[in-house]
This record gives sequence, structure tokens and C-alpha cells, in this order.
Amino acid sequence: MSLLDAVDLAQKLSKDEYVAFMDALEINMGQLQRQAHEMGVPITIVFEGWGAAGKGRLINELLLALDPRGVKVHSTLAPNPEEFHRPFLWRFWTKIPEKGRMAIYDRSWYSRFIVEKMDPLMERLPVKKAYDEVNCFERQLSDDGHIIIKFFLHISRKEQKKRFKKLEKNPMTAWRVTDYDWKKHKQYDTYHDTIEEMLSRTDSDYAPWHVIPSENWRFAGMAVFETVIHEVGRQLKKRKEAQKAPAMQLPPVSKSMLDRADLSKALTREEYDRQRKIYQQRLWELEHEVYLRRLSVVMVYEGWDAAGKGGNIKRLVRRMDPRGYEVIPIAAPNDAELAHHYLWRFWTKIPKAGHFAIFDRSWYGRVLVERIEGFAKENEWKRAYQEINEMEEVLANQGTLIFKFWVDIDQEEQLKRFKDREKTPAKLWKITEEDWRNREKWVPYREAVDEMLYRTHTPYAPWTIVESNNKLYARMKAMKTVVKALEKHLITR
Amino acid sequence: MSLLDAVDLAQKLSKDEYVAFMDALEINMGQLQRQAHEMGVPITIVFEGWGAAGKGRLINELLLALDPRGVKVHSTLAPNPEEFHRPFLWRFWTKIPEKGRMAIYDRSWYSRFIVEKMDPLMERLPVKKAYDEVNCFERQLSDDGHIIIKFFLHISRKEQKKRFKKLEKNPMTAWRVTDYDWKKHKQYDTYHDTIEEMLSRTDSDYAPWHVIPSENWRFAGMAVFETVIHEVGRQLKKRKEAQKAPAMQLPPVSKSMLDRADLSKALTREEYDRQRKIYQQRLWELEHEVYLRRLSVVMVYEGWDAAGKGGNIKRLVRRMDPRGYEVIPIAAPNDAELAHHYLWRFWTKIPKAGHFAIFDRSWYGRVLVERIEGFAKENEWKRAYQEINEMEEVLANQGTLIFKFWVDIDQEEQLKRFKDREKTPAKLWKITEEDWRNREKWVPYREAVDEMLYRTHTPYAPWTIVESNNKLYARMKAMKTVVKALEKHLITR
Repeated sequence: MSLLDAVDLAQKLSKDEYVAFMDALEINMGQLQRQAHEMGVPITIVFEGWGAAGKGRLINELLLALDPRGVKVHSTLAPNPEEFHRPFLWRFWTKIPEKGRMAIYDRSWYSRFIVEKMDPLMERLPVKKAYDEVNCFERQLSDDGHIIIKFFLHISRKEQKKRFKKLEKNPMTAWRVTDYDWKKHKQYDTYHDTIEEMLSRTDSDYAPWHVIPSENWRFAGMAVFETVIHEVGRQLKKRKEAQKAPAMQLPPVSKSMLDRADLSKALTREEYDRQRKIYQQRLWELEHEVYLRRLSVVMVYEGWDAAGKGGNIKRLVRRMDPRGYEVIPIAAPNDAELAHHYLWRFWTKIPKAGHFAIFDRSWYGRVLVERIEGFAKENEWKRAYQEINEMEEVLANQGTLIFKFWVDIDQEEQLKRFKDREKTPAKLWKITEEDWRNREKWVPYREAVDEMLYRTHTPYAPWTIVESNNKLYARMKAMKTVVKALEKHLITR
Repeated sequence: MSLLDAVDLAQKLSKDEYVAFMDALEINMGQLQRQAHEMGVPITIVFEGWGAAGKGRLINELLLALDPRGVKVHSTLAPNPEEFHRPFLWRFWTKIPEKGRMAIYDRSWYSRFIVEKMDPLMERLPVKKAYDEVNCFERQLSDDGHIIIKFFLHISRKEQKKRFKKLEKNPMTAWRVTDYDWKKHKQYDTYHDTIEEMLSRTDSDYAPWHVIPSENWRFAGMAVFETVIHEVGRQLKKRKEAQKAPAMQLPPVSKSMLDRADLSKALTREEYDRQRKIYQQRLWELEHEVYLRRLSVVMVYEGWDAAGKGGNIKRLVRRMDPRGYEVIPIAAPNDAELAHHYLWRFWTKIPKAGHFAIFDRSWYGRVLVERIEGFAKENEWKRAYQEINEMEEVLANQGTLIFKFWVDIDQEEQLKRFKDREKTPAKLWKITEEDWRNREKWVPYREAVDEMLYRTHTPYAPWTIVESNNKLYARMKAMKTVVKALEKHLITR
């Protein structure tokens, strides 16, 4: 059954009917918006449709019925260079609404399927993967409490032609009809099939499509308003039920990567000094190669307190060009970050092609500190393994090389370093009460680390255990891992 | 006396001397950074210099001596489209460090004077104005407590040639030397004069230049570190003294714009309906003209509680294309905003050329609510009049049309509207305890409004009083003001 053809395009509404409908409606919309605001529910409304179907007008109608303090319109244009050199979804992840607010998209991530050159990756990404990415994106938002409403404004080929001609006749609007519009118009039937496929592949319970007959704008307006009211109501109800859902069941963790780590590994100072110079020089060379080839590199450093993450990173970037890398320290989220999906603050920091981003702590906080300290609910951190894998796969699809280091020490070594910090005035600031408290939770943290390593060790984003009881060994291991993988990657591409 | 030629380029440091210097230094830098962090002082470090003078290496040396959690490097490249279509300073205002953090710029706002096509405006902006903008920018940051340290890395023409040749010989680095670099090299003497002018015009007590002899990188490194330590120390001391400064004296307010407002002005419903349609249609046309001509429009709505700002804006945008305008409601600042200069959150919202930004409340909060409620100190809000005028002048220089509406009602009318809101269930959410509290401060608010109107009514950004006891009259006045000014502006350009 065709979603497009099922729609009766002849439906109409008179001016009087529309005015009466709208008068009753405006108060309704305001109430709904305030209700969503109070419940902290973000709302995403997508407008897609044929050229000249009336997206602009309908968006403005909707906008005017809403409190402008809670809503933002995003127009999706051809990617600018900042967008072009990042994963396609970057520009949408960075624009998701915060809790209790609303975002309206005039064209959206669906442009990747129906607008030429909107996503440079589409030439080599299997179309199934492209749909998977979009479905995952919507599912992740929905799981976080977002309401997603998607409109496709439908008009016939004949009606489109009539509207283009009318726009062309008026000198004020003639510029809006381009050659590309006419080209697409001529291929209406082909696009019809493409759109059908898109609608059916991305029509889900958490983000359903609504095809709106749009030849009569008043009817379309009414349909849009009614759908918004109905969908927000329906989904708010679903949210309440979802809160009562039982805990997710994940398959058991069947092996420990930490158990197998040999923390006695060490390197002498002489050997370290000799190797360090070679690998730092090589990294500097590879950094430039990465830049010239427009690859990206994402590195994640996770590890125990005092395991030596900071020092390890410092040696890694010692000879690198600061224009090519950035160290991104991750602390507790600020209030803007807390008001968004937890992955938002990492998406906003995804590096441009050609650059290295080194995360000192990362999104894995969701399944470590947030899990152990109870900042994330059980189902939230359990869900996070899959969400993180999906995000990393999107990066990998884009040609990002991902390194994830677990910087490992044992309890004894940590105690020694804590005491050393307390004794050394220049290091005293590095040790806090919180470090001692975390240390007491070593056993639950270790369990969480093992589960994280097990569930998120993927072919496209594998973990490397960096044995760090001996810091010199740890630094060389990280450096060598990066150099070898980069060399391999640069040769095979 | 030439700032460049005064420098002895032959100065050197041996490897052993450098290592000894650096060992003593690293702890020092960390302490300084933590001290600035605790005091909430932002630090801005600018690196300018000849091509191949070693900016990258020196920045990395500095970076490695710092805690990466507190510092961010910004490379200034040719403007991307987002930057190209906004005032030149936009890309730097949006990147200022927050309190207690550090930003390092690899090339900076000085590129506008020494790098071709970095600022599209420079072709028609008088050079004095361009320098004024930059000096105001630095003075505003400094007044807000920022420490600004500016380096110019100096090498001779001969040394530059040697370095370019060396880079070209190595296949890994040959791509870094471009034709443009050689072109600039050949014009070394011309650039020498340009740089001299730039240094002398922008060397100030609040943001002094430091010319670093950079032919020996170890000597340059030492000089950079010593300067940073000395300058941070010096300026932190100055900050403490500045806190004891007496209150600023401003010239007296010699007239009241509010007194002259005739709040009895009114319009009948019939007249309103007739005019509204004409002007809304005209605005829609002008919106497209603004878009095609790549102008920008900034509108500020300020006014008493319940004066009808929201409703006025709604009617203004009723027929406009949502892709061309944005309504930006300004509420109390969030924590990220509080951690920055108060103008930062407005700079980040400056519209792209071709677009309208309508601010529902604005930067004028600094001299209204922040003044009255004591959120800003006396010298802070007194300083703000000039800062705001300077910001608006930068926008105007760029070709932005600025409208500022004071939506005015009297106390009696406000009381009537408050009571009406309390009686109407659908409007009840619009009235809070805070509105009643603000009302009690009518007299001090009125004084602040009058002072604001008097001090910030400029030729490039004039205020319009919108008499709003009668809402219909107020809506038409705003619409007509915009339409007339746009028509005039579009014709004269």
C-alpha cells in the first residue's frame, strides 16, 4: 500500500471553517506546549514535502500558534564546510531541542535521501546503512523522551507545475524557482518512488510519518495542527507508561578483559627515551598525512584515577601540530548539557575531517560514573551500550579512526600514587576527597569497566588495555597502537 | 621607534639552558593557571607572526605546560560561509574564553589587517574604524576582567626564506609552503610597514604587544613563557586595584523620551485590519529583498511587563517566511552564559546576512533588570551604555539595520492587564509574583529606561517609542516603522 497514493488530495476547507477551527485551537496549542515544557519533554517536528508544497507557510502558521520562547526553526540547506567535513548527522545532533523545548525542521535529515549532494557520504554508503543511521538517531531521541512528529506535504505533479508557474510569474518570487526545481519536477515519478521507499523504511512507532494532502493549504493547516495535538497527547501518555517498564535484560558478560591484563609490563628509561623520539616524530608525520587525506581520528582515554591519563596524552601530542589536534577534557555536565540527550555534548565535539580529537574521559561516563553513582537510571545506562556502539559506527562509516584506551593500574599502585600526591606540594591539587571515595568503590567500578569493555569492544571501535603500573610502558603502548593503526589504515585506503 | 626593528634577532639559548629553564617553569605555569582559574579570570593569548616563524611549535610548547582542562586553541583560517556573512568580530566574540579558562589563538582578529580576504568588509571600511573595532573589543574584554597577551613572532626576511626552502625540501612539509607564502615573502618590506602600523595602533595598556625574536626557537620559547608569567602576574595585580576604583561619572540625563510619549494614541479595529494586511504583505516582500541583497536586520523589543511585546512581534511576522526570521526570546542567563562576558550570549545570536533576528528582550537587560535588581555592579552597568553602542556600531558597519522598540504603557493600563490575566484561565500562566514585584519598582525602572533611551539613542541604532496603551496602534506603528526604514534603506543602497 502506497503511503502517498493513499492520500485524498482533493480535500478542502473553507475560510470560515478554518477561522473557526483556528480560534478554538490556539489556546489548545499553548496549553500543550506548556505541558510539554513542564514535563521536560522535547518535541521535534519535521517538515518534508514536494517543492512548492507550502512548507514555509505551514511552518509559520504553526509557529504563530506557539510561544516563541519555546521553539526554534531550523532550515536545512546544502552543507556548509563545517558540516561537509563531519558525519551527516552531526548537524542535526547539534541542533536537537533541549528538555521542554521544541524544534521545527524545514527539511531535515531526510534530505540525505531526496536532495542531491546533501550528504557527500551517500555515494559510498550502502543505502541500508544510511537508513539504519537515521532510524537509530530517531530511536535514541525517542528513548530519551523526545516526541518526534514527521510531516510529508504531498501535492500532485500537476499542482506542482501550476505553483511553479505562478511563482515564476511574480517578479518578487520568480527567483525561488530554480532549474533544479524544474529538473526534479520532470523526474516527479522517480522521486515519487524514492519518497515511497523513504517513508516506508523510516515509518516507526516512535517516529511515524504523516502524509498531509497539501493542495488546499487550509486543509493542510488543519491536518498539521490536529496531528500535532493528537501525537503529543498520544506520546506523552506513552512516556508515562514507559516509566513503569521493567529493567532491560542484557546477555551476561562472559569474559573479563581486565583479568587478562598483565600489569607487570615495564620499560626502562633508556629504552623509553629511544623509542619515544622515533614514535613522536612518526606521529607528527602521520598527523599531516591524516590532514591531507581528510581523515578524522577520535581517541578516548578512560581509566582509574591516577592511572596517568593526562601524562599519557601529553607525551602522545608532544611533537604534534596544535592546529591538528585537540584535547577535550570531559567533566561533569553543565546545565545546558544536562538539558539535552547525554550524547549531545559529545556530538558537538566531533572533530572535522583531517583532525584529531582526544577525549580525556568521554561518553563512557554514562556506563561508569553515572551508573555507579546513580546519575543514570538502570535502563538508561543499560541502553547506553547500544547507543554508544551506534554512535561510534556512524563515525566509522564516515571514515573516522577510533581508538579507545583503558588506562589500567591495580589498587596497590593507585594507593601509592595517591599518597605520593598528598606528600608533594606541586601535586596536592590533583588529589581530592572524591578520589578517596571513588577508591572505596573499586569493586563495583571494576565490574562496570569489565561490562563496558565487553559490550562496546567492536570491530570498528576496539578497546586497547594500556597497562600503566609502569607509566613509561603505558605511554609507549598508546603511541605504538596509534602509529601502527594509522599506518595500516593509511596504506589500505 | 619601530617595534619590530628594536628587537635583537640574534638572541639565542642553548639546549641545556632551555631544559634547565623549562624544568623550573612547568610547576610555575600550572600554579598560575590554577590561580587564574580560582579567581575566575579568563586569559586570552594571541600568536601572530611572519610565516614560518614557528607559531605552531611555540603554541604546542605552551600548551604542554598547561592543564588541558583549562585551555583551548583556536586556529584562524579563511572565513567559512557562517563567518563570511556576519560581522568580522563575530567569530572571535563567539570564541572568547569563559571565566577562569584560557584561549590561545593561532592567528586572530589581527588577520583582518595582514591576511588577504580575511575580512570582506575591509574593502569599504575606513581603516581607522577597523582598528577602533579591534581596540574596543579588547578594551571590553579587559574591562570584564580578561587578561590579554599578544605575541608577534619576528624573523628576518633572510631567515624566512631559509625556512621556506627547508620546508620545501622535505616531502612531508612541502605542501605547507604555498604560492601565497612566497608572494608575501617577496613583499616582506611592505608587510613590515603594515605590521608596524598594526602594532603601534593596537598596543595598549590593557592589551600590549610583545614582539618576540624567533630565529632561535628556544630563546623564543623562553621569552614567551616569561612574558606570560610576568603579564598574568601584573594584570592579576591590576585587577585587584581596579576593584577599588571609584564609581564612573557619566554626563547627566538631560531629557526624557518617555515624558514625551503620547499614550492616548489609538487605532480603530477597521482601520487596523485595513492597514495590517497591506503592511504585512509589504513586509513579506521586503523580507525577500533583504535576503536577496544579503542585508541583515536586528530588532530589539524592550518594554514594560504586559506591554504587549509578544503580540506585537506575532503580528509583525504574521506573513513572513520563517526561513528568513527568527524570534529570539531572552530569559535569565544560564550558567554557561554567566561564565562569559555578558555580551557573549548576544554575539552568538547575531543573524547571518540576509536574515532578521527579533530579540524579545535583549542586551538592554544589562542597564534595566540587572541594574535595578543589583545583578550588575554600578560600574558594570554604567560601562554598558558605551559597550552596547560600540557593539551596535559594529553591526551597523557591517550593513545591519537596527530597530529598537520601547513598547510603552502607563501604570494604570498595566494594572488593568495584570488583573485581566488573573481572571482569564488561558492567560493565567502569563502573570507571576515577579510581575507584581517588578511593578512596585515602577519609578526606579522608569528612571533606568529614560537613561537607557538617552544614552543609547544613536544615528546608527535609534530607539522608537511604541505607544501601546492601544495595542492595535502599537502593532501598526512597529510595522510601519520597519517597512518605511527598510524601503528607504533598500533604495539608498
